[in-house]
Amino acid sequence: MNKKEVLVLRDLLGSNKAIAKEIREQLSSRGILVLNLISSPGAGKTTLLESLSDRLRPEYSMAVIEGDIETERDAERIRAKGIQAWQITTGGACHLEAKMIGKLAPEIPADLDFLFIENVGNLVCPASFDLGESLRCVLLSTPEGDDKPQKYPQVFASSQCLLITKIDLVPPLPFDGEAARREALGINPRLQTFAVSAVTGAGINEFAEFLVASLQNLRQARHA
Amino acid sequence: MNKKEVLVLRDLLGSNKAIAKEIREQLSSRGILVLNLISSPGAGKTTLLESLSDRLRPEYSMAVIEGDIETERDAERIRAKGIQAWQITTGGACHLEAKMIGKLAPEIPADLDFLFIENVGNLVCPASFDLGESLRCVLLSTPEGDDKPQKYPQVFASSQCLLITKIDLVPPLPFDGEAARREALGINPRLQTFAVSAVTGAGINEFAEFLVASLQNLRQARHA
Repeated sequence: MNKKEVLVLRDLLGSNKAIAKEIREQLSSRGILVLNLISSPGAGKTTLLESLSDRLRPEYSMAVIEGDIETERDAERIRAKGIQAWQITTGGACHLEAKMIGKLAPEIPADLDFLFIENVGNLVCPASFDLGESLRCVLLSTPEGDDKPQKYPQVFASSQCLLITKIDLVPPLPFDGEAARREALGINPRLQTFAVSAVTGAGINEFAEFLVASLQNLRQARHA
Repeated sequence: MNKKEVLVLRDLLGSNKAIAKEIREQLSSRGILVLNLISSPGAGKTTLLESLSDRLRPEYSMAVIEGDIETERDAERIRAKGIQAWQITTGGACHLEAKMIGKLAPEIPADLDFLFIENVGNLVCPASFDLGESLRCVLLSTPEGDDKPQKYPQVFASSQCLLITKIDLVPPLPFDGEAARREALGINPRLQTFAVSAVTGAGINEFAEFLVASLQNLRQARHA
């Protein structure tokens, strides 16, 4: 990688909002689509990334920033797929912040297509912290129940897409996907919604196509 | 209920620690066992309480404090079982605090056996806030995966019991209950562990018996 292409942020001491804005501007201007994945623990964020990598590569390049309280487990899973991954362990903090992403900026290849950020497993706090993403996606897994959007409204209100995950478990699980989708759209009518299963592969292609279209839109907007 | 038996806390403006201490002292001295249930969203806290109520009543009395960001849904489910329930909606806050429990103290019947507090669905932040409970129980549902204890260590370190929930989903879910239990005990060797399913009823009696024994211990200690 050309040294001149390394991303360096001007101000890592600003507010979360200011740092996020700079991350978004710099990465968008390079044509990198940044996704912030938010969900409860165990909703399937890492497994989704493993499945997506099979669809997106080798045509597109991707890298992953893993956020966890402790352990390198998720980054190790991603690296085992041959994908560059950085692990941020927050050591107790319940969410990622933009400055944590900003500190990694010099290591992010400037010719990347997709940068996925897997937030700390928490359906509440990460919703309040812009990481400079182009797209925020909330995952709701079927075992959590279809009543969650109204109980945790902020993450649904602030996201651009909703993935209902683990749909292979219904039935026997009593999850009404249409009810969950309707409730989420009641909070945020602009949500793009997907129903996926990493086990059967259902819906993964559709979501990958959405990501590719979003990448193309980002790059067209850059030249507009 | 005798008016003199109403619980009034002296100091609702103290630190969380001080308020929690007073709640614990007052409720323990009345012989009320207070449980703080912590888990990810949708791990089955409300369903566990519904199942427990069938085992504990009419021999024992119970009441429930429900913590949620938004909605009265969980309190309505508990009330539908004929159980007194208060809903605390935190309006965005990611955990309950002792002062929220303290404000309800005057409404808590002083002749209660069990007071269950269902915390906000969040495996991270509630671990840092003592609510004055006698027992803290963390729930880990099988769909979340058996790798969670080391990723979210604080809640396992600060709890007295671990309930592995939704064991009816294994198999097909690839959850290694013994590995999860071992990892949790590695963090906190004193954890009492239970494996339960509200669907099949497995393990619910065993947990109910543990609660009754804990209540008896609390009352014996009071007279010692």
